[in-house]
Amino acid sequence: MPGVGPKSAQRIAYWMLNSDRETVLRLADAIVEVKNTVHFCSRCFNYAEGELCEVCASRRRDESVICVVSEPRDIAAIERTAAFSGVYHVLGGALSPMDGIGPDDLHIAELLKRLADTDVREVVLATNPNVEGETTAAYLARLIKPLGIEVTRLASGLPVGGDLEFADEITLGRAIESRRPL
Amino acid sequence: MPGVGPKSAQRIAYWMLNSDRETVLRLADAIVEVKNTVHFCSRCFNYAEGELCEVCASRRRDESVICVVSEPRDIAAIERTAAFSGVYHVLGGALSPMDGIGPDDLHIAELLKRLADTDVREVVLATNPNVEGETTAAYLARLIKPLGIEVTRLASGLPVGGDLEFADEITLGRAIESRRPL
Repeated sequence: MPGVGPKSAQRIAYWMLNSDRETVLRLADAIVEVKNTVHFCSRCFNYAEGELCEVCASRRRDESVICVVSEPRDIAAIERTAAFSGVYHVLGGALSPMDGIGPDDLHIAELLKRLADTDVREVVLATNPNVEGETTAAYLARLIKPLGIEVTRLASGLPVGGDLEFADEITLGRAIESRRPL
Repeated sequence: MPGVGPKSAQRIAYWMLNSDRETVLRLADAIVEVKNTVHFCSRCFNYAEGELCEVCASRRRDESVICVVSEPRDIAAIERTAAFSGVYHVLGGALSPMDGIGPDDLHIAELLKRLADTDVREVVLATNPNVEGETTAAYLARLIKPLGIEVTRLASGLPVGGDLEFADEITLGRAIESRRPL
């Protein structure tokens, strides 16, 4: 389990042996329930308890803007900002030829089907700003632009509250190149 | 001295006592020379050895674009990126009412005089993306825009090579709001 090393594992094991039977069985039940009830949203591949995830099931979201992310946890990060009111599409990873992950391993065909079936105005490519994420964004942009849909990318630049002096050279260079009118 | 605590200071003191007389006197001379020869550039307030700093003295720089920074060290950071070919103007700090630093304490009058005397097309406000830096940028934008000069600001967003999951909420929110067409 991520974040649980040998020492933590041992501590948890002793805690289970020390706790009363009921508490430990409740934990086991909860684990079984999670695996039984949580699956992928049939539309966007976010985690969902019903047929659709919370975002897809909501009537308050703008379905004409789709934000494409690598993993469900990226949706959680974006939702916390409260800066996005559209819907999502989870790829389930990023293109990485080194690891043998190609377009067929990601939910790209499903994304193109959504774009063909519904009336989408803008696709925001919110894959990570690293090599794999940028490659994936460039690949998707080439597929989606010919459909006449606006394709945008998250802004790269200086973190808010930071200091010029501590920014790495590539980020600062990008911040200068993509400076915007005030 | 910044970065020199009591232990380092003691280590340096013993090193001086142990070194031969000539080495230590050369250090003393170098310190005197720095204070005698390095002063502020008469045009942009960067550090300079001559009347003008290296950037202002160069003939290869585009004098129609001025990048406004807080401190000379910010020029060093931007020069390392090789992403900017214009000239600079050092304010010598940032507006901070809490610390009693107002417009008259910065080289703002000198900047306005430069804008009046020379043919400037764009001013890039490269103050830090924190409260004082943003306040200073907003103040300068209000002064410069009426002169018919384009005013731009460094891009805020995700650091290059980073991960969506680890970005703070405000930076990620800013990156979504200022997403750009691909």
